[in-house]
Amino acid sequence: MSQASVSGSVIKSSLIEPDGGVVVDVIVPESERGSKTLEAESLPKVRLARIDVEWVHVISEGWASPLKGFMRENEYLQSLHFNSLRMGNGTVVNMSLPIVLAIDDETKENIGSSKDVGLVGPDGDLLAILRSIEIYKHNKEERIARTWGTTAPGLPYVEEFITPAGNWLIGGDLEVLKPIKYNDGLDHYRLSPQQLRKEFDRRQADAVFAFQLRNPVHNGHALLMNDTRRRLLEMGYKNPILLLHPLGGFTKADDVPLDVRMEQHSKVLEDGVLDPETTIVAIFPSPMHYAGPTEVQWHAKARINAGANFYIVGRDPAGMGHPTEKRDLYDPDHGKKVLSMAPGLEKLNILPFRVAAYDTVAKKMAFFDPSRSKDFLFISGTKMRTYARTGENPPDGFMCPGGWEVLVKHYERLQAEEATPAAVSA
Amino acid sequence: MSQASVSGSVIKSSLIEPDGGVVVDVIVPESERGSKTLEAESLPKVRLARIDVEWVHVISEGWASPLKGFMRENEYLQSLHFNSLRMGNGTVVNMSLPIVLAIDDETKENIGSSKDVGLVGPDGDLLAILRSIEIYKHNKEERIARTWGTTAPGLPYVEEFITPAGNWLIGGDLEVLKPIKYNDGLDHYRLSPQQLRKEFDRRQADAVFAFQLRNPVHNGHALLMNDTRRRLLEMGYKNPILLLHPLGGFTKADDVPLDVRMEQHSKVLEDGVLDPETTIVAIFPSPMHYAGPTEVQWHAKARINAGANFYIVGRDPAGMGHPTEKRDLYDPDHGKKVLSMAPGLEKLNILPFRVAAYDTVAKKMAFFDPSRSKDFLFISGTKMRTYARTGENPPDGFMCPGGWEVLVKHYERLQAEEATPAAVSA
Repeated sequence: MSQASVSGSVIKSSLIEPDGGVVVDVIVPESERGSKTLEAESLPKVRLARIDVEWVHVISEGWASPLKGFMRENEYLQSLHFNSLRMGNGTVVNMSLPIVLAIDDETKENIGSSKDVGLVGPDGDLLAILRSIEIYKHNKEERIARTWGTTAPGLPYVEEFITPAGNWLIGGDLEVLKPIKYNDGLDHYRLSPQQLRKEFDRRQADAVFAFQLRNPVHNGHALLMNDTRRRLLEMGYKNPILLLHPLGGFTKADDVPLDVRMEQHSKVLEDGVLDPETTIVAIFPSPMHYAGPTEVQWHAKARINAGANFYIVGRDPAGMGHPTEKRDLYDPDHGKKVLSMAPGLEKLNILPFRVAAYDTVAKKMAFFDPSRSKDFLFISGTKMRTYARTGENPPDGFMCPGGWEVLVKHYERLQAEEATPAAVSA
Repeated sequence: MSQASVSGSVIKSSLIEPDGGVVVDVIVPESERGSKTLEAESLPKVRLARIDVEWVHVISEGWASPLKGFMRENEYLQSLHFNSLRMGNGTVVNMSLPIVLAIDDETKENIGSSKDVGLVGPDGDLLAILRSIEIYKHNKEERIARTWGTTAPGLPYVEEFITPAGNWLIGGDLEVLKPIKYNDGLDHYRLSPQQLRKEFDRRQADAVFAFQLRNPVHNGHALLMNDTRRRLLEMGYKNPILLLHPLGGFTKADDVPLDVRMEQHSKVLEDGVLDPETTIVAIFPSPMHYAGPTEVQWHAKARINAGANFYIVGRDPAGMGHPTEKRDLYDPDHGKKVLSMAPGLEKLNILPFRVAAYDTVAKKMAFFDPSRSKDFLFISGTKMRTYARTGENPPDGFMCPGGWEVLVKHYERLQAEEATPAAVSA
């Protein structure tokens, strides 16, 4: 059991120590908001893209602890080359994705020799101050190659956010003027690492197992989450809690949108496929990189900071098809292998799971049995979306009816919109 | 002071512990050579390319300690993602370059389910046994992207050795049937890490500083080597020894060949530019990757195993021009930054050096003084080769006359050969 000091008082913060010992919180206290905002107004400004705001959110709540702001060059280089940061005391924390802020030549010139800058959201809101800044070169090619292991055109994060970005990176310490909110009706799902840690304590969890996902929950997912709980009980834990933790930041265009997924997840709990008593559903605010073995480390590391001491990992985590070749971009087994060897993740219990597929004999999702492989039907995300789009029902037992209905309705709306391009979505 | 057990007896092995505690030596003792050779003959065979033999050499003598053979997948993945290997006892050693052996489909099929294979040199010699093999996929694109930070066409090591190589990698433990020799008149320079450690002890060195190079030694290099010695004496060391350690494996076509460089280095010592009393010249048998910040770690790590506890690093180590763009492939400062932060290299003293250039006022190589930058002339490797090729003399004091003459003669021979393409080099 470790303890961390939060806001002056010592609270029991449970099952696993956050990276660096304390969950970073760089949101300005309300009492200082006025003066800091005035100061920010006087500083040179950096205009953020949508993705940058997602990262400000991630950093501000401590998902990336011990990172206190956008990376300076020494952190960037360690992340790029070693997927980890060496701390002052010699310990190592995992940090596999560069969390950086790009600026263009004009912005750099405008900053001049200022030590601090103000960060402005896409709609003109003053969001934060970046302190003791350092500006260094943004070698996009090298960043992409070392993060994704390819520079092939068509990587969603690269095309959307790196290629159009500036040729400089600006690092520094963040002071975020107020909590980042999206006002999309889902903010109540966006629990911070500190809030999650408190909730696990309130529920007296003696194990927390996190499940990262960016897709609707089908009964195969449910099977392995319930099976994990069973295994943890067998190990002697009395009250294992599932953190069902959909990713809420940027996802590629053909993934199911967050609001639809959250509605689908609600139905899965309503229909009793997962037990609400032992499950917490919350949104993980990070954007997706689709960077496979590199990204899965980030997914796991952030959950350490949120208090999860078990992490479930499956086939090809954070993977996708190669953008220009007919194959998976990553070896489907590399994610879990890399995760099990990653520096700074030694304290996390990695739970690799067996593949689940539709058992056409038992007529339900079941763990794949290679001795009767012909009985099993693999239903990929693409296949599932095709079913939903065409209105065709998937095999009985693939997903709970309430959850499936949410998807079908989503695709019906989408098709209606596509059919009448001028129409405004209700 | 650490001690390592070598061949049964404990010898003082000096100033820095080899990675993993012991210098690996996988050369079969002479008494077992006959039986092992017979066994090797009975095994499925893998035909080595020239580059593979260089790596067999490197591994066999322990430059890559604790690596005992070509990497299996768990080592390969750690090298690729973390530039380091976690040992059984939790310690971390640096391992930035994948040291792997590629095979094609036909060879893989031929190996079948054999646990061991025999390794055969390019000219048909049986060189080694690879034990307890593991065959896994060779994703060339990912390997290249993560090692070089680019996949642009024109990387010398990639074009020569990776693109034409097979789609599988085979890892395992090496048993090398006899020491690798080249019979090129330079084998006496090829001291193993154990031989170097013994020599440092014999000379009673209390500091060993290694200088990695693949170019002729000019007076700027000499300046910084001599200056390093001066600094070490100032620090209180009584007998610092310089390991002048030219790389002897594969280099790109326009680099000066090894035999010419070794002759040039001899002249530099003969001419008294470096002091033979406090200098050891030996060949580092590794091939060059030209992989900048990733490769410089390998260069430093291998010298730890050879007993050097200080490592000199300059501008853009192991760098080259970008193969398709008009710029350096790597940020010239990244090499020394990455080296200073690299996992597993904490025990090595990194000595970054200031840039030396030709001082046109003092008429000698000197440390660059930015306050009178106009007085300095930067003479790049390309510029130096142009001088030598055109028979033009470089400025007085750029290189000792004996050393310069070696280069001029080399380029004269080269031009004579180019003029008469049918002629055979003498």
